[in-house]
Amino acid sequence: MKLIVVKDFEEMSRVSSEIVLGVMHRNERVNIAPTTGTTPVGLYKIIVERIKNKSYFNHVHYYNFDETPFRVSKKEGRIITNLRQMFLTPANIQEKNIHPLDQSNFMTRDQELAEFGGLDLVILGLGEDGHFCCNFPGYAKFSQKTVEIPLQGKLYELYKGVFAEEKEIPEALITMGPSAILASKKLLLMVSGKAKAEICKQALFGEIKEDVPGSILRTHPDITIVVDEDAASLF
Amino acid sequence: MKLIVVKDFEEMSRVSSEIVLGVMHRNERVNIAPTTGTTPVGLYKIIVERIKNKSYFNHVHYYNFDETPFRVSKKEGRIITNLRQMFLTPANIQEKNIHPLDQSNFMTRDQELAEFGGLDLVILGLGEDGHFCCNFPGYAKFSQKTVEIPLQGKLYELYKGVFAEEKEIPEALITMGPSAILASKKLLLMVSGKAKAEICKQALFGEIKEDVPGSILRTHPDITIVVDEDAASLF
Amino acid sequence: MKLIVVKDFEEMSRVSSEIVLGVMHRNERVNIAPTTGTTPVGLYKIIVERIKNKSYFNHVHYYNFDETPFRVSKKEGRIITNLRQMFLTPANIQEKNIHPLDQSNFMTRDQELAEFGGLDLVILGLGEDGHFCCNFPGYAKFSQKTVEIPLQGKLYELYKGVFAEEKEIPEALITMGPSAILASKKLLLMVSGKAKAEICKQALFGEIKEDVPGSILRTHPDITIVVDEDAASLF
Amino acid sequence: MKLIVVKDFEEMSRVSSEIVLGVMHRNERVNIAPTTGTTPVGLYKIIVERIKNKSYFNHVHYYNFDETPFRVSKKEGRIITNLRQMFLTPANIQEKNIHPLDQSNFMTRDQELAEFGGLDLVILGLGEDGHFCCNFPGYAKFSQKTVEIPLQGKLYELYKGVFAEEKEIPEALITMGPSAILASKKLLLMVSGKAKAEICKQALFGEIKEDVPGSILRTHPDITIVVDEDAASLF
Repeated sequence: MKLIVVKDFEEMSRVSSEIVLGVMHRNERVNIAPTTGTTPVGLYKIIVERIKNKSYFNHVHYYNFDETPFRVSKKEGRIITNLRQMFLTPANIQEKNIHPLDQSNFMTRDQELAEFGGLDLVILGLGEDGHFCCNFPGYAKFSQKTVEIPLQGKLYELYKGVFAEEKEIPEALITMGPSAILASKKLLLMVSGKAKAEICKQALFGEIKEDVPGSILRTHPDITIVVDEDAASLF
Repeated sequence: MKLIVVKDFEEMSRVSSEIVLGVMHRNERVNIAPTTGTTPVGLYKIIVERIKNKSYFNHVHYYNFDETPFRVSKKEGRIITNLRQMFLTPANIQEKNIHPLDQSNFMTRDQELAEFGGLDLVILGLGEDGHFCCNFPGYAKFSQKTVEIPLQGKLYELYKGVFAEEKEIPEALITMGPSAILASKKLLLMVSGKAKAEICKQALFGEIKEDVPGSILRTHPDITIVVDEDAASLF
Repeated sequence: MKLIVVKDFEEMSRVSSEIVLGVMHRNERVNIAPTTGTTPVGLYKIIVERIKNKSYFNHVHYYNFDETPFRVSKKEGRIITNLRQMFLTPANIQEKNIHPLDQSNFMTRDQELAEFGGLDLVILGLGEDGHFCCNFPGYAKFSQKTVEIPLQGKLYELYKGVFAEEKEIPEALITMGPSAILASKKLLLMVSGKAKAEICKQALFGEIKEDVPGSILRTHPDITIVVDEDAASLF
Repeated sequence: MKLIVVKDFEEMSRVSSEIVLGVMHRNERVNIAPTTGTTPVGLYKIIVERIKNKSYFNHVHYYNFDETPFRVSKKEGRIITNLRQMFLTPANIQEKNIHPLDQSNFMTRDQELAEFGGLDLVILGLGEDGHFCCNFPGYAKFSQKTVEIPLQGKLYELYKGVFAEEKEIPEALITMGPSAILASKKLLLMVSGKAKAEICKQALFGEIKEDVPGSILRTHPDITIVVDEDAASLF
């Protein structure tokens, strides 16, 4: 793993944008799986400004790596909706370059990706509980490829608040599991803030175990981890 | 992971030789870490025949990934000695392309490798107990880079028989740990024989856990696993 | 360029097969453009034996890089027909992995290839006049991408003999030009026989000029050139 | 080739910096050959700011690709001196990462580079006469690797003005020739300004010939060409 400790959120975003733009500038089709959440907000601000309406980035394709679908309504899931709002729509990405993951296609996603050369880059954040994508402690298995995770127990409690209407809470989440994410050619992990300091130390320097799902990421042969000083304060 | 099931030991050796020669044929410096043991005997027979005295393979460098040093005598360790006997000497590899791992350099090996572009390929076998390199169940931590493993307990029992003289039994083994091996750009894992069927199934399809060290290998983004029908008989 | 001089046609075929199989063994989609002619006959014999009915090569796709279409009949062109006979059919390649180049698609071929990651390997021979693909001295321009070459003058003379019926002689050949071929990630050039000794020397060590179309090939950053002793006899 | 047309010098510098930083962010040793001249001034301003005193770029090595040595004094040549002034010194690059090309080592440079993995990126400008590095029309041969170019005729006239003292004018220039530059894994070509419009059009869309040395560059399988609107005004 390559670890880069930077001053703050802004520098984390800037350094990360260099890595992402470096991959985007390749001469052929590029497949990227970008995260949602608060960590990449600064990154996407930089990237959107740079790639918006630039035809020389038309070969870049986007795949969301997890989804929390709505149970009843037929609208797109929460993750792809967020990703559109914070990144894809302001960047004016063509619809043909957007590949939403959902209940209808998750079982064939790994195969489909392989046919188009596989993922070139996954942009990841780390949860305070050590999760990445929808790989949560107590649920994640390092062996999982792209799977459905039944929304039960602690996970149900965690998610019920995020749906305005109870009838919309889905029976299951969908996520690329650790083995599917590690199959990407390159990984970028961003971690920011004091609240992440403890889990960041565990994930980067502690035992590699399923209770800290993010701990497996550092075994990837081409991962860059960009951490701000707050998140690195316990190293 | 890419899994290739072949008929027998001979075909495993042949298919593996294609993968190894493919890497060796690259146009620039290539760094390979080859395993010892009985599994690669057929592979090396093919490779030796092909690369012996061929100057167009002069850019290939060899690194052993583990070592059981002699405690008293100053001779080279058992692993590099075996590797020379079964592969490097018959292939007539120049001494400047051979990079023995030992007690004097194991702590700087990962750094040294990085300066020369890192490992391009590790050729691995799988022990009946799930070990690879000197990463044994009960001792291996997925987080380990290149480390010393104190020769104690079960491990002492396992190794004492392999030294003719008790005074030569070392205090510690040296091995590239799981995290050091997974940092290679490419991995090749060969498994052969009915005796490996149970562990092979566990390592490839079971839980990824330190009790089965080899189970972590399949998370590598560019691993090819070549298994003969006997070893695959429980899939 | 990496130059490998071998004893004879048989060794040229074997060494070349190692390079081709090395590329085919990659874990994701691989796009290969194979040549026809007499030079690769030994290579395809080895390869066919190895890949026939092997599902672990199902991710390899084949693109012919030139074509001499029939003018009147609607059957497939001469090149793809030959390629099927000598390689694709005996290797039992699935139809969906075969991508014939013809008059209907040559103008969009470069674009189509780019969308699927571009060519990973082109397998090339060298004509006694220095041509490769249908890039002939007096007609080839280094700047050409995939183009139509009007069948006139010397070229008409050259080709009219190869068609049984005069009405079938096409108005134009189709070929990936030098610039399209050099866009491949890797090139393999095979040259065999005393009759090629003079042009081989010119192409590899002489001036790089359009009169010797093959002279441009050695500027590619990842080309391996396998030459037998007869063809190398004037080096 | 991938062609990117941008608004002006500033945007050319910014887009180019993304490509350069993308290469620099790789996880292992990176070898870069940067140009001097006025074209990269904006690029280096951005890069210097970003990499200065950042230990996570310590694996990046720098090689100048041409040199105009002083004939009498023993000081470093003009090119490496300029490169230090405009880039390496303000970026505070460690001396061990700087590899000056000079009369003593030019004949072994290609070999030395190959042992360290070859060049990963060459950053190039284009002269109004179509030259790149010291590959001038009338002198450059596409077939040249790293060579000495006798300073005679037009070339002597061109260079005599750049030396304050006549006794310092060298007998020969040193340059990586077209074949040495094209051996790099990636190329970045920047062109800016109305004065370059005519040659830029010729080099990118005209005949590929030694009279326009830069015309060969676009055959590289991984070149990105960043041109501002002024330089692209005749496309």
